[in-house]
Amino acid sequence: MSANVKQMANAIRALSMDAVQKANSGHPGMPMGMADIATALWNPANGFLKHNPTDAKWVDRDRFVLSNGHGSMLIYSLLHLTGYNLSMDDIKNFRQLHSKTAGHPEYGYADGIETTTGPLGQGITNAVGMALSEKLLAQEFNKDGHTIVDHKTWVFLGDGCLMEGISHEAASLAGVWRLSKLIALYDDNSISIDGRVTPWFDDKTPERMEAYGWNVIRSVDGHDAGAVAKAIEQANANAAADKGPTLICCKTRIGEGSPHFADTDKVHGAPLGHDEIAATRAHIGWDYEPFVVPQDIYDAWNSTQTGAQAQAKWQKTFDAYSKKFPKEAAEFTRRMNGELPANFDQAVEEYLKVCAEKAETIGTRKASQNAIGVYAKVLPEFLGGSADLTGSNLTNWPECKPVRADSWGNHINYGVREFGMSAMMNGIALHGGYLPFGATFLTFADYSRNALRMAALMKIRSIFVFTHDSIGLGEDGPTHQPVEHVASLRLIPNLDVWRPCDTTESAAAWGAAIKRVDGPAALIFSRQNLPFMKRNATQTKNIFKGGYVLRDVKADNEKANIVLMATGSEVDLIVKAADVLAAKGVSTRVVSMPCTDVFARQSDAYKKSVLTEGVARVAVEAGVTDTWWRYNCNAVIGLERFGESAPAGELFKLFGFTVDNVVNTALSVLQK
Amino acid sequence: MSANVKQMANAIRALSMDAVQKANSGHPGMPMGMADIATALWNPANGFLKHNPTDAKWVDRDRFVLSNGHGSMLIYSLLHLTGYNLSMDDIKNFRQLHSKTAGHPEYGYADGIETTTGPLGQGITNAVGMALSEKLLAQEFNKDGHTIVDHKTWVFLGDGCLMEGISHEAASLAGVWRLSKLIALYDDNSISIDGRVTPWFDDKTPERMEAYGWNVIRSVDGHDAGAVAKAIEQANANAAADKGPTLICCKTRIGEGSPHFADTDKVHGAPLGHDEIAATRAHIGWDYEPFVVPQDIYDAWNSTQTGAQAQAKWQKTFDAYSKKFPKEAAEFTRRMNGELPANFDQAVEEYLKVCAEKAETIGTRKASQNAIGVYAKVLPEFLGGSADLTGSNLTNWPECKPVRADSWGNHINYGVREFGMSAMMNGIALHGGYLPFGATFLTFADYSRNALRMAALMKIRSIFVFTHDSIGLGEDGPTHQPVEHVASLRLIPNLDVWRPCDTTESAAAWGAAIKRVDGPAALIFSRQNLPFMKRNATQTKNIFKGGYVLRDVKADNEKANIVLMATGSEVDLIVKAADVLAAKGVSTRVVSMPCTDVFARQSDAYKKSVLTEGVARVAVEAGVTDTWWRYNCNAVIGLERFGESAPAGELFKLFGFTVDNVVNTALSVLQK
Repeated sequence: MSANVKQMANAIRALSMDAVQKANSGHPGMPMGMADIATALWNPANGFLKHNPTDAKWVDRDRFVLSNGHGSMLIYSLLHLTGYNLSMDDIKNFRQLHSKTAGHPEYGYADGIETTTGPLGQGITNAVGMALSEKLLAQEFNKDGHTIVDHKTWVFLGDGCLMEGISHEAASLAGVWRLSKLIALYDDNSISIDGRVTPWFDDKTPERMEAYGWNVIRSVDGHDAGAVAKAIEQANANAAADKGPTLICCKTRIGEGSPHFADTDKVHGAPLGHDEIAATRAHIGWDYEPFVVPQDIYDAWNSTQTGAQAQAKWQKTFDAYSKKFPKEAAEFTRRMNGELPANFDQAVEEYLKVCAEKAETIGTRKASQNAIGVYAKVLPEFLGGSADLTGSNLTNWPECKPVRADSWGNHINYGVREFGMSAMMNGIALHGGYLPFGATFLTFADYSRNALRMAALMKIRSIFVFTHDSIGLGEDGPTHQPVEHVASLRLIPNLDVWRPCDTTESAAAWGAAIKRVDGPAALIFSRQNLPFMKRNATQTKNIFKGGYVLRDVKADNEKANIVLMATGSEVDLIVKAADVLAAKGVSTRVVSMPCTDVFARQSDAYKKSVLTEGVARVAVEAGVTDTWWRYNCNAVIGLERFGESAPAGELFKLFGFTVDNVVNTALSVLQK
Repeated sequence: MSANVKQMANAIRALSMDAVQKANSGHPGMPMGMADIATALWNPANGFLKHNPTDAKWVDRDRFVLSNGHGSMLIYSLLHLTGYNLSMDDIKNFRQLHSKTAGHPEYGYADGIETTTGPLGQGITNAVGMALSEKLLAQEFNKDGHTIVDHKTWVFLGDGCLMEGISHEAASLAGVWRLSKLIALYDDNSISIDGRVTPWFDDKTPERMEAYGWNVIRSVDGHDAGAVAKAIEQANANAAADKGPTLICCKTRIGEGSPHFADTDKVHGAPLGHDEIAATRAHIGWDYEPFVVPQDIYDAWNSTQTGAQAQAKWQKTFDAYSKKFPKEAAEFTRRMNGELPANFDQAVEEYLKVCAEKAETIGTRKASQNAIGVYAKVLPEFLGGSADLTGSNLTNWPECKPVRADSWGNHINYGVREFGMSAMMNGIALHGGYLPFGATFLTFADYSRNALRMAALMKIRSIFVFTHDSIGLGEDGPTHQPVEHVASLRLIPNLDVWRPCDTTESAAAWGAAIKRVDGPAALIFSRQNLPFMKRNATQTKNIFKGGYVLRDVKADNEKANIVLMATGSEVDLIVKAADVLAAKGVSTRVVSMPCTDVFARQSDAYKKSVLTEGVARVAVEAGVTDTWWRYNCNAVIGLERFGESAPAGELFKLFGFTVDNVVNTALSVLQK
């Protein structure tokens, strides 16, 4: 290996230790340990990584995912050195407020960050979603002699990612789908935060990964960029032969270069200190001041020219494709831009009319399936799926095709892998080209929760479908009955949680989730049948405001004496209670609130017009009550305990979800 | 195999299909498919399973975990047939309200149910915790020639459990800890809900498990109880030779016995229907009416005599032990009964005094570590741990010893396995003998959330420790900064969520969590330093009521004009704001609310005495506000968005957690 290549890696080491020291916080060990591996992959002279620093969004670029995201200074160094829009001032601002160089790589903060990482195991799982997207898009759009989709997904990961359960779900599906262009480089440094890992992590990782159908390249010296480059060539050969994904196991020393702390847990998550930084400089032969990189090293790293050439080459291919297949090219461009078809709004409007005409009493999970089927006709980017509950979640539709290793599809059997599914959906959304949705039972939202949070944090369009939404699922009992889940999903910032009450609201919720451009949605559906609610045109339109007046049930007086509000299966209950109350002389306003998150974004004037200031309010929802008190309710009928195993009808009675109880609660509130 | 053994298995098949049919809901496929395996293990003639149906809580019984819990009729059949307190009427009441035979096996509902299962993958993980408990207790209590702890942990699991990520975490630790008495029987029927699994689950499971250090017995005919018995003998030999855990892979057909639905996904989760049930009866040669078992089959299954003998034998051993080691025997009995040492209350009281004397300003995570160290001196059952963040969570204490494969310990390095840790803690709590606590960063409570729910549902004493509790962790940024987490944990019924504000509250929270007998606790601690708060004796006592008056800061008037309430790091903020407000003529009551769950259980009179009816209220917490509005707050200062990567001080300012903002909010509330 030439001295120059070593110095290219040392530039990463120096930037990383200096930035962490300046911030007085951060993780120098990983970037120093993986610097040589990164050099092997990113060195433009090697030509492995297909990317263009001056067009970070080039659609056929390779995706690079830093699954061990705490080593963020590694990717910031690489982006800076190769010519992305990330200056030395940005590096100096590491971990400071509003800088591009956040503590962990944050999607949307800096060009070249493909996904937000830090929560371990999710990066590699996002990458599986990206690699699947590439494979499906290639199958869908490439034509003989016109290969417009052909890129790899590269992942750096560490011991932490491989200990996490989600790595099992990710690796298993990557294997069974034979994602040959997925190549992971494992930073096998044998150190985690608690120390040398053997007493708590002694898997034979190569054998484990082979059991999933991966190719494994063993025992590569991770401090020999040449050896790593050779391994990458072998991985590329596996990819070319479509042999499945490849894991390259690189033996490394964490904090390599630090004469006293390398190969210890001391270097993982704290600055080295000035003395050790000086000693490291001497040890690795890096004679430059902090935040100074000599021009020859910059020149060696600069990837703007190779990047521009690569992109120009692709552009030529794409131009030829566009000429021969103009419709497909336009469609590909639309989809990669994340734009909806021009006729989508119309499709939603028309379908809402159909729902009103049919006026069906069905489970909202079935209403959801019907909506999926209708929207799928205009949304070829729809990529559905279920965590082994397809027939219960009803995520498939008549024309859908299953995704298989050897054939294109648009419905994924994720297996019993809720967290993996959700994090893969995020990868699919990030990659572009498909609009992912995936389902499980609502109670198992718990398993996938952090991936929902990541989607919300990244502001991406993953649509999480949850069925069997309450004690209404009946006999499967408390493990399967959500109680706290609707509320707890509402707590995640920027996640829109919809719990529709009938076919029309279900169709609208799907429409809203699909049209949303700045975040994910959770769509929550019932197992049991729910009656159709009649609406006028304004009411139907107002569903998209998250909450609206569904009925004003008048007694002899004009103004409502009380507002009843509910979501999902409990809307029917308050409608019926309103009738009983009217007969007792209480004028009642019925508010359906399918999405409190969207309602919160409406104007104060609208919110007041719906909730009627100065009138008693009662909310009803078959779950914990916490998210309702902010509406200044006088009472909330909810369920603050776990459910029971019994037929649903008995449970609703047992827990007070009856017209009688709603009426009596309303009356007692009015008497106070 | 004798006809009798086949009929023993057929009794399970018949009871399962008949009970599911009667309930018109449930999962017949698994019990019918695993009936022969169950017969091999549970047949008293084989003598494999050490248990006594007439004393289900015998401390040295083998633990049996049905990880694929949807097959609940399998265990109900076994409990009924072998002589547990579970009658044929109970079987007939399958899935009915308040019956012992809930849809999924529920801990505490019927004798012999060792853990609640249904959420896949957690049963096998509970079992790892149980097997670890057995190993540690044996190391701690057995003496030469006096083996009072010596039992196995048996697990039934299916494809679903093995697809779940948590199975990776569980199997990896079971391997590295060499839990030789853990034996799992895999129902390898190749069917999951979506159908034949090959397109989404094609792991080489034996190779995968061997990579974790398990022994694997391959390709056993799961419908030949004799073959399964032979495999169990081999597994027992592995256990005797301390070779590590064993997985027995049994090839089965789901719904075996059903002539038309066996080996298809149709039989998984729905009644067979009367016709197919009749056909099955004919096919398997079971000529009895529904819910009728002939006496010879009952006789063959009856395990009360073998069970009583086994327990009597153990009792003799234990009596001898008690004579020779009376102190240890008493201690063993106390711990297995889940009783605290007599001097525990005193230890808490004394330590609260020490905290008051020291008046330290430290991070509450450090306060937590100090409390752990003090309580550990009187609690030999303490079994701590961290998911690879020991030095950050501060869960270790000076005298603790690490748990290792070859040596006893009381602090566990769980590795980066939050969900696995939490579900193992549940297994440890269920087993008895140890009091488990385990920690990670609060934001990663998301990863383990369903295990917390399961602990709450089972009403067991697992103590979940979460540090780095807010934006106060600073530079690691939004992926690591909890925003919705404190609130979302509060939503889980029966989980006590503590967020202490200083050393005294931290010590009290630990005391309360340890003393709680009917459920788990989440203890939430800060990374950053928090100042000590002075209290009188009554105030200190009232911490245990979850919320209390910490200060009444008087202006010239007598009664408070406003109540400020907060938790954790924000208590200091409202104390300071109260001083400023008093100077402005506003008398302010400062309420510290470390545990809203415990506060909710206090008398109305106490709650009113703390919150002062008819006075404006403002709550302050560095997270989403939803759980505060139920206190009829006029304003809540919270954080309804994700955080940012920056030094903590800057973030608290940016998001309005300043004395100025609290004061101005209070004043504006009073002006309204």
